[in-house]
Amino acid sequence: MYAFVKKKRDVGADIAMVDTPEIEKEEVLVKVKAASICGTDVEVWNWNQWAQSRVKNLPLILGHELAGEIVEVGAEVTTLQEGDMVSAETHIVDGTCYQCRTDRMHICQNMEILGVDRDGVFAEYVKLPERNAWKNHPDLDPAIASLQEPLGNAVQSVLPKDHIEDVAGKNIAVLGCGPIGLMTIAVLKTIGAAKIFATAGGRNKVRMELAKKVGADMVLNAREEGQNLVKIVRQATDGKGVDVALEMSGAASAVRQAFNMLTPGGRVSLLGILDKPLKLDLNNAVVFRAATVYGIHGRRMFQTWYQAKGLLSKPHFRSKIASIITHRLPIKDLAKGMELINSKQAAKVLLQPNW
Amino acid sequence: MYAFVKKKRDVGADIAMVDTPEIEKEEVLVKVKAASICGTDVEVWNWNQWAQSRVKNLPLILGHELAGEIVEVGAEVTTLQEGDMVSAETHIVDGTCYQCRTDRMHICQNMEILGVDRDGVFAEYVKLPERNAWKNHPDLDPAIASLQEPLGNAVQSVLPKDHIEDVAGKNIAVLGCGPIGLMTIAVLKTIGAAKIFATAGGRNKVRMELAKKVGADMVLNAREEGQNLVKIVRQATDGKGVDVALEMSGAASAVRQAFNMLTPGGRVSLLGILDKPLKLDLNNAVVFRAATVYGIHGRRMFQTWYQAKGLLSKPHFRSKIASIITHRLPIKDLAKGMELINSKQAAKVLLQPNW
Amino acid sequence: MYAFVKKKRDVGADIAMVDTPEIEKEEVLVKVKAASICGTDVEVWNWNQWAQSRVKNLPLILGHELAGEIVEVGAEVTTLQEGDMVSAETHIVDGTCYQCRTDRMHICQNMEILGVDRDGVFAEYVKLPERNAWKNHPDLDPAIASLQEPLGNAVQSVLPKDHIEDVAGKNIAVLGCGPIGLMTIAVLKTIGAAKIFATAGGRNKVRMELAKKVGADMVLNAREEGQNLVKIVRQATDGKGVDVALEMSGAASAVRQAFNMLTPGGRVSLLGILDKPLKLDLNNAVVFRAATVYGIHGRRMFQTWYQAKGLLSKPHFRSKIASIITHRLPIKDLAKGMELINSKQAAKVLLQPNW
Amino acid sequence: MYAFVKKKRDVGADIAMVDTPEIEKEEVLVKVKAASICGTDVEVWNWNQWAQSRVKNLPLILGHELAGEIVEVGAEVTTLQEGDMVSAETHIVDGTCYQCRTDRMHICQNMEILGVDRDGVFAEYVKLPERNAWKNHPDLDPAIASLQEPLGNAVQSVLPKDHIEDVAGKNIAVLGCGPIGLMTIAVLKTIGAAKIFATAGGRNKVRMELAKKVGADMVLNAREEGQNLVKIVRQATDGKGVDVALEMSGAASAVRQAFNMLTPGGRVSLLGILDKPLKLDLNNAVVFRAATVYGIHGRRMFQTWYQAKGLLSKPHFRSKIASIITHRLPIKDLAKGMELINSKQAAKVLLQPNW
Repeated sequence: MYAFVKKKRDVGADIAMVDTPEIEKEEVLVKVKAASICGTDVEVWNWNQWAQSRVKNLPLILGHELAGEIVEVGAEVTTLQEGDMVSAETHIVDGTCYQCRTDRMHICQNMEILGVDRDGVFAEYVKLPERNAWKNHPDLDPAIASLQEPLGNAVQSVLPKDHIEDVAGKNIAVLGCGPIGLMTIAVLKTIGAAKIFATAGGRNKVRMELAKKVGADMVLNAREEGQNLVKIVRQATDGKGVDVALEMSGAASAVRQAFNMLTPGGRVSLLGILDKPLKLDLNNAVVFRAATVYGIHGRRMFQTWYQAKGLLSKPHFRSKIASIITHRLPIKDLAKGMELINSKQAAKVLLQPNW
Repeated sequence: MYAFVKKKRDVGADIAMVDTPEIEKEEVLVKVKAASICGTDVEVWNWNQWAQSRVKNLPLILGHELAGEIVEVGAEVTTLQEGDMVSAETHIVDGTCYQCRTDRMHICQNMEILGVDRDGVFAEYVKLPERNAWKNHPDLDPAIASLQEPLGNAVQSVLPKDHIEDVAGKNIAVLGCGPIGLMTIAVLKTIGAAKIFATAGGRNKVRMELAKKVGADMVLNAREEGQNLVKIVRQATDGKGVDVALEMSGAASAVRQAFNMLTPGGRVSLLGILDKPLKLDLNNAVVFRAATVYGIHGRRMFQTWYQAKGLLSKPHFRSKIASIITHRLPIKDLAKGMELINSKQAAKVLLQPNW
Repeated sequence: MYAFVKKKRDVGADIAMVDTPEIEKEEVLVKVKAASICGTDVEVWNWNQWAQSRVKNLPLILGHELAGEIVEVGAEVTTLQEGDMVSAETHIVDGTCYQCRTDRMHICQNMEILGVDRDGVFAEYVKLPERNAWKNHPDLDPAIASLQEPLGNAVQSVLPKDHIEDVAGKNIAVLGCGPIGLMTIAVLKTIGAAKIFATAGGRNKVRMELAKKVGADMVLNAREEGQNLVKIVRQATDGKGVDVALEMSGAASAVRQAFNMLTPGGRVSLLGILDKPLKLDLNNAVVFRAATVYGIHGRRMFQTWYQAKGLLSKPHFRSKIASIITHRLPIKDLAKGMELINSKQAAKVLLQPNW
Repeated sequence: MYAFVKKKRDVGADIAMVDTPEIEKEEVLVKVKAASICGTDVEVWNWNQWAQSRVKNLPLILGHELAGEIVEVGAEVTTLQEGDMVSAETHIVDGTCYQCRTDRMHICQNMEILGVDRDGVFAEYVKLPERNAWKNHPDLDPAIASLQEPLGNAVQSVLPKDHIEDVAGKNIAVLGCGPIGLMTIAVLKTIGAAKIFATAGGRNKVRMELAKKVGADMVLNAREEGQNLVKIVRQATDGKGVDVALEMSGAASAVRQAFNMLTPGGRVSLLGILDKPLKLDLNNAVVFRAATVYGIHGRRMFQTWYQAKGLLSKPHFRSKIASIITHRLPIKDLAKGMELINSKQAAKVLLQPNW
């Protein structure tokens, strides 16, 4: 089959012909109908510092967001069958470690990630453990189905635990308008946040416009507003600050702003990955503010999938999520997709199985 | 001033001229701009069994839902001033009991309720402790402002604690389509529930139509469906049952249905007041189902008010809430309002200060 | 091998020679080193109404609480090996239903229970899915190891969710002094409850003495105190009532008392199984009291096991749990053990593998 | 009356004769029976950088931890009377801000702190708002009663919210063995933590011995262990790391260790105040670890007081708390108490009203 394979510890990846995966008895083989590019894929493609230290074994087929059709099921698979349309939970877990046995499977201590630790989905076929194949409604557009995995991150950022301070009627800030930031805004709009503030670095105008479109009440350009950004948010919340701040940019300045604009006793989710250690005034950011901070990694398996499914049952939410796809390319043009993202022209890039 | 005063331990109440209340130094005097009829008012008016045992002292001015304007402030009031538009939190609490000192002020052990334990709002003026006067945006329609108090009950039913299993993307049933049930549907629709099932006794067609209008995906007539009702809900949820069931009718059959349609591990809120003890199969309803049950009484002071305010900042939500007002009457026609409710022709009846 | 097999839909069971179980590749074979009698076993033995409707298939080997040694492991077992000492999580789950995939595996919709739905542990050997074999420290006394399963119920009753109102420094009532009630008292004593009230039916003096011994500050005889019982608890809590009430008796009167002695806003766990539907004044029990009620069934898998393990690492707690074992019998005398329990002379009866 | 008054923006404070406070109608006058020195008092005494920026107005009577007897009550005080023994909740709040009206009074936005923003307790008398005077059992030793305020911080650190992952049977680390760290260890021991790890800077041997005495299973000298400290904790927890880490030292290295020794999905409380911004690898500390972080400031009013009261009802817990008092001095020797703390010879210093 065709696949995008990274063979050298360097930038990029090439189309190659490789063997179609052979499935184990608890796995399924999925024919890729749609795939999408995640920020992580860009990092692995760009072979940045994080990727160099994180990716252990090459050659590696890239990619992890997909929608596809099951074409073969292992002998012991009980819940899926040929013809089922599925998306992938991309965290392959052991099911037996302390975290897995205490309802925290998404941070399994022996986790492998598709397209990072094992072969991914930028290929004609991919094999998945039965547990990781999430069955979709047959009518769900594969483009949207593929986006469910990052949508799960958005849900996890907003609702990181089963028992959580609800966002209904609260003022919320989303710092960073990448695809997950945008999906988060769409989620917040759909679940009753009062005012939604979005901040963006300012270079990617496409994303700022989308932020408005999917539900932000106010979109702030961090580059232009600088020191005023926090003040503007405070003024727009009667001086109280936001109840919840969701950091999705990985920018040091955004992390600091997230805390500065937070009402005392509020909560912060940290999803963005920083490029280096952060200098932070913990006293004022967290201690005196009595803030609660949640680290966000992955998606609870599978609460977030059920919640995403519930939200996607609403046409207006589906259309918000669809609008985040700014480009649809044949998968053979993956390099172009990477370029669109690197040059800040895209929000989400969808790949169609055209080799 | 004019007021509706119940003077005898019997049905009804009469318009009377009484002294305008004199405020204490920590109180405010409010000129009533709008009032609305709650189910409790109907019970006190009808002088049913509950009212006979609950109401201690007559004469009593009825009513507790209102919006009004502050016309006088006590000497020690610091957060309000003349001209402020306010609604009433109707639970007057002591602030010093165990419940009040552990964030459960809404179930204060020495609580007095407007129109039940002390003079209420079906009058030209009413006095309120500063703490109980919730300041509204000056532009908020008094009709909607008056409905904030029962809206708080709806919010409390959906989100009974600060930390709670969120409803986003979940399937939810609302059993009972009285005004609070209808508001609850509107809240659920606005905060991202997946499917919303509403059940109604079946006699009040107005309310069933409103249930659809404010957001129910399916409105079931309990009278007609009978034993099938639970089955229908189960089928519409892929056999899982609902994640959350909100009992707002006070009907014994509805309480049983709430549990029967609940997915194991789900949660139930009980707001409806039953007219007698209930015979319930606790084993299957609660124990084996590992259900969580929340008793709903009042509204957390004042988290639910802030949340209601946040939701009411959205025009589409305000319009849903407004649509629940089926009748607007001069307050002097209170008896007619009671009749409209007793004869199942109304959802919410709003009273305008026309004596 | 020897085993206690119920062959007829009638009282009792007989020792029989049956085939040693053959394990599947994901199972382990366990040689029973200790077993203990649960209330459920008594019901199945006595063949009461619940058992008649619940038990589907005979013949059936009884029993589910055990400690044993692994003597054979299936080909795909990865976390256990021969010689490991294990106890059994007795709920065999599918791992794929809605409940299992949303962190509620203990209420799996396709659950089978050892000794009820499939062959149990009152035998020389029993087979278990790898997932259900909880590895013990090799030095843990098998007698105590066998009690971990009901101890998990006790932990689940006290801490039914991951996020829960803590019991530290709170006043708590345990209604019912059966083995799980006694273990619950031991747990509460060890995790910092302020005052612990225990109530018992009054016929089983052994259990009442044990309640005191394992930590109850006050043990009340429900038979003798009658209507005064609630009053006594209220007086001993400065009129406030208890913060948490744990119903572990299955007596209708105890369920009512649990609510009556509860402080408004407090929480109740219901573990006891009632012999028929209960007539309950829901208004005053739950609604006006703003009570939270948790149905308790099984034990969260496997948070409660880790917590039980942590508590059992403390010698004083182990000794409390050990003290609940009032009788140690050779397993061949199972009928005598049943008799001891039925005649209210025992707390926990431990069975040693002596055929 | 006599009082320790800081008159100049410089080190120390002097005994002075000042007017006995005159109470308002909602206040009480308390005769000091015992006071104790908090780390904050040391900072204000030492006039370090934090104190210089934080303390606005001089002259100022220092101190905030006390036990005393009410000698006068204001006209509108309803819950207290002359002769009552009380301790002080030292956060004087407005009761009307967003935080106060949403169950977060302890982080009121207009808070004043005794001995920092208004006259404190190192005096013969102090006045308190009725709300802030916590009534003690008349038999409670004033020495222990005075320690309830920091004990509340310990409770808040362990249980920062009403709904929280319980510590029962969990492995916990306390980083820092100052008085609050020591009290935290005592709390953890009393509420069922499995293994308790304490770390200390290593200079104050008195505190390290006390850590062991009040319940730590392992006391680690951070100075000596250095890089090994985290490894030791991991080894002692089967490689899992601790479930909860409580940072109570304010040392940058301890904050980093707290995260490094945390099991993924675990929680951290930050109480210690750092002397400057911290450089932290947020990715690995919080994000990938899916950690939850709680900023701890003050004590929930008044849940933590009720919990502390419940715990103090146990003699063994009282004796643990009492053991933390290493020195009892006449209050006139306050300077000596400060010296004992600054020279690392003391844990808690108690002051007796001997002028």
